[in-house]
Amino acid sequence: MTTRLNPPPEVLGHLEANRSRHLDDLLALIRVPSISAHGAAVRECAALLQRMLQERGISARIMETNNQPVVYGEVAGPPGAPTVLFYGHYDVQPPDPLDEWISPPFEPEVRDGRIYGRGAGDNKGQLLAHVYAVAAYLAAGVPLPVNVKFLFEGEEEIGSPHLEPFVAEHLDLLAADVVITSDGPKHDTGKPVLFFGLRGLLYIELEAQGANRDLHSGNKGGLSPNPAMALCRLAASFKTEDNRVAVEGFYDDVVAPTDYERELMARIPFDEDLVRRDLGLCELDRVGDLSPLERLMFEPTLNICGFHSGYGGPGSKTVIPSRAMMKIDMRLAANQDPDDIWRKMERHVHKHAPGVKITRLGPGTAPSKTRPDLPVSQAMIEAVRQAAGTEPVVLPMLGASMPDYIFTRVLGLPSIGIPYANPDENNHSPNENLGLEEFYAGIVTSTYILEGLGAMPSGTS
Amino acid sequence: MTTRLNPPPEVLGHLEANRSRHLDDLLALIRVPSISAHGAAVRECAALLQRMLQERGISARIMETNNQPVVYGEVAGPPGAPTVLFYGHYDVQPPDPLDEWISPPFEPEVRDGRIYGRGAGDNKGQLLAHVYAVAAYLAAGVPLPVNVKFLFEGEEEIGSPHLEPFVAEHLDLLAADVVITSDGPKHDTGKPVLFFGLRGLLYIELEAQGANRDLHSGNKGGLSPNPAMALCRLAASFKTEDNRVAVEGFYDDVVAPTDYERELMARIPFDEDLVRRDLGLCELDRVGDLSPLERLMFEPTLNICGFHSGYGGPGSKTVIPSRAMMKIDMRLAANQDPDDIWRKMERHVHKHAPGVKITRLGPGTAPSKTRPDLPVSQAMIEAVRQAAGTEPVVLPMLGASMPDYIFTRVLGLPSIGIPYANPDENNHSPNENLGLEEFYAGIVTSTYILEGLGAMPSGTS
Repeated sequence: MTTRLNPPPEVLGHLEANRSRHLDDLLALIRVPSISAHGAAVRECAALLQRMLQERGISARIMETNNQPVVYGEVAGPPGAPTVLFYGHYDVQPPDPLDEWISPPFEPEVRDGRIYGRGAGDNKGQLLAHVYAVAAYLAAGVPLPVNVKFLFEGEEEIGSPHLEPFVAEHLDLLAADVVITSDGPKHDTGKPVLFFGLRGLLYIELEAQGANRDLHSGNKGGLSPNPAMALCRLAASFKTEDNRVAVEGFYDDVVAPTDYERELMARIPFDEDLVRRDLGLCELDRVGDLSPLERLMFEPTLNICGFHSGYGGPGSKTVIPSRAMMKIDMRLAANQDPDDIWRKMERHVHKHAPGVKITRLGPGTAPSKTRPDLPVSQAMIEAVRQAAGTEPVVLPMLGASMPDYIFTRVLGLPSIGIPYANPDENNHSPNENLGLEEFYAGIVTSTYILEGLGAMPSGTS
Repeated sequence: MTTRLNPPPEVLGHLEANRSRHLDDLLALIRVPSISAHGAAVRECAALLQRMLQERGISARIMETNNQPVVYGEVAGPPGAPTVLFYGHYDVQPPDPLDEWISPPFEPEVRDGRIYGRGAGDNKGQLLAHVYAVAAYLAAGVPLPVNVKFLFEGEEEIGSPHLEPFVAEHLDLLAADVVITSDGPKHDTGKPVLFFGLRGLLYIELEAQGANRDLHSGNKGGLSPNPAMALCRLAASFKTEDNRVAVEGFYDDVVAPTDYERELMARIPFDEDLVRRDLGLCELDRVGDLSPLERLMFEPTLNICGFHSGYGGPGSKTVIPSRAMMKIDMRLAANQDPDDIWRKMERHVHKHAPGVKITRLGPGTAPSKTRPDLPVSQAMIEAVRQAAGTEPVVLPMLGASMPDYIFTRVLGLPSIGIPYANPDENNHSPNENLGLEEFYAGIVTSTYILEGLGAMPSGTS
C-alpha cells in the first residue's frame, strides 16, 4: 500500500514565497566562475556556498582535500530517523567556445523562462534545490523528517580525483542510509528520471612501432613490418564475430539484469527507429542478441576512440608508417573491476601482439549499481512519482560513467540519481541553462524525497 | 665466349676532349627549372634539349602529348643493325624545401667533385650521357654500331600520365629491340647496377561511416557501431597468419622467380642485419618463408599507408568516432594486373565489409618484367661489366614502381634499367647532385651499351 506523501503546507508555502530569493542566490552562485579545470575561483565559490548554507541555519564547513575543498553541511532530524546524503558539485566546466554564448556564461540571465549561465543546471541549480528544500523546513519551523548531510565537491568536472580518499577518510562523518544525486537532465520525453547505477570506465592506449622512420613502400615493402596492420589485427582480436569482447575472462564478473530490471527496461520509452534516424544509421550496432537497452546498461563495451597512423591527407602517399596509435575506452558493466580488466587486457595484448605497448590512461572508474528493488529505491521512485504526478522513467543503469562507486563501494550505500534539469540544458556546451519551472519543481521534488525517506519504516532502507 | 667490347678510340678521345663542354651543357639544362608539378619552364627545357640534340647532328623534334611535350630524336645506324630506344625525362621534382639547399637548385654549382642542382642526376645528367655517347660517334666520324632512338618525356615526376597514350600512338616510330633507361642510383656499395623489372602499384582508400557525428561513448556505447573497428577487422581480413594476402585470387598471376633469377638474387649483396639495424627493427617482416629479397622483388604487398579515425591528441577522449579512413597501397608482383587486383579487392570488401566504401586512387601501374636471361639482357650485363671493370649487381626486379610496363607491355620490348648516379645523389631531396666521375663514366658506359648491342648476332635480342 502506497503512502500518500504530504510535504507540510508551511514548507511548500515558504518555497512559493521565496522563489525570487532562491533565484537570486542561484544567480549569485553562477556568477562565481568556479572552473575546476582552471582552478581560480573554485575556493571562492565554496566559501559563498558555505555562507548560503549557514545563512539558512545549516551547519556547514569547508573541508580540505588535496586540492579543491569540499563543502560539507548537516542538519539533524528526529532521533532514529534515516539519514540522506545529498551529493553535488559546485565546480563547472570551462565555458569555451565563448563566442557561441548569447549572454556571457558568468553573467547569468533569465530569458524565455530559463536561467542561462555556466553551471545553471550542472550542478549549482540542482544542488541548491536540495538545500532550499531542507532550509524551508527550518524556516517554517517544521521538523525535518530525516537527518540530512550535504557533500558538495569542487572537482567533479575534472574527474573527482580526490573524492575517493576524502570519503574513505570520513566514513563516520558521511554515514547515511542513501546517497541522492541530482545531476544531468530528465528523460528526453520530459518525464522525470531515476537511475540506479552507472557503467565504469577503463581507458587504454596501444602503440605499435615499426621502423625508426616512415619508409618508401616500394623500396622497403616486404622488408619492414607495418605497425598499423599490427594494431588492426590486435583490434580485430578483441572482438568475437558476435561483437562481444573476446578478451579472456572479460565477462567473468558481469551481472545479468534481474527479472525486475528487465521489467523496468521494458517500460523505458525507447524508439529504436528514432534513435537510428537521429544517428543517421541504417541499423544500430548488434551485440549477440541483446536488446539495445540491455547493451547500453548491462553490457560492457570495448570502443576504439581513436586510431592514427601514417598519411591522412588527400590523395595517395606510398609510405610504410613508422608508428601506429590506438585509443580504446571500455565501459564496464556491473560488477566488473577496472584493475581486473586492465590485467586481462594486458595479458591479451602480450599474448596476441607482444610488440605492442599498452598503457593505462588514468585509474578508470568502477561501475556502480544499486538494486532498484530495495525499499529505499522503491521509496524514491514513489516520491518522484508523487512529486511529478506522473510515472517516472526508471533506468536500472546509465551507459555513462561517474565515480558513483565511491558511494556504493566505499561508503557501501545505495546511491540513486534523480536529475532535475531540462533535457536541453546544454551542460558542457554553450548556453547552458536550467528552466525556471524545472528549478522550482526540483526544490519541491526534494521535499518529497525527504518525506518519502521519512515515511520509510525504520531499518528498511 | 665473351666478346671483348672496344668502343672506338676516336669516340673515347672525343669524349675525353669534350668533358668541359659536356659539363657546360648539362649545367645549362639544369638552369631551366622544368618542374612538371608547376608546369612553367618544362616546354622551354624541351626546346633547349631539342637544340642540344640538333647541334650534335641528331635529328630531333618536339612531339605533343595532352600536356608536356616529348623530345624525340633518332640517328640511323648500319642497315639491319639492332635499334636501341633510350628513355629519359627532362622534367624535375620541385626543389622544396629551398632553405636546405647549399647552392640554389637552379643555379648549378660544381663543388667537391659533384654537380649540385635539381635534376643533375634525376634525370638530366643521365639522359645526356646517352646523347653525348651517340654524338661522339657522329663527331668522330665513326659509324654507330646500332640504330638509336631517344624518347625524353616531360612528365615523369608527375607519374607519366600521357606517356602510355603517346607510345600507343607511335608504335612504328618507337619500334626498337630494347629500351634502356638510366635513372636512379647505382648500388649502395657503389657497384654498377642493372635491373630488369619493377613491381606495379595499386592504391585504394577505404572509408567506414558510423553515426552522423562523433558520439559520447558512454551514452551511445553499445548502440552505435564503431567505424574504426569495422576497418580494423577488414584490414585483418586482408592477411593470412602467414602475412600473405588473403584476398581471393590475389596470387593467381604471380610468377615465381626462375632458377636463374634465384641465382642472381643469391649474388646480390644483402646484409639482413645491416638493414635491420638501419631501420631500428628487432626483426624484419616475415612473409611465409620467403627470403627478404624474394619478398622485395617477387612478392606483392598490401600495405596500410595511413589509418585515421577519432581522437589522436594527448590523454583520453571518450568518443565513438563518426568516420574512419584507411589508405592502402599494393605493390604488384609480375604478372599481376592492377585492374584485375582492383576487382578482387572490391569483391573482398563487398563480401567482408559491405558497408565500407572502397575507392581506387588513380589507375595504378602495371608491373614490368624483362627476363634477365635474354641475349639482349646478357649483352647489357656484359657491357656494364666491361665498362665498369667490375661485376655489376643484377637485380631481377626493383621493389618500387615506375611505368616501365609501357615499354614491356605496350611496345612489347625488353626494358633494362642501368642507373649511372651515385648512391647519395639526393634525388627528390635538397642538394641533389651527380658526381663528375659518375657523369663521365656514364657517358663511357653508354658507348659500351652501343657496342654491346652492335656485337649481338642479328635477330638474337
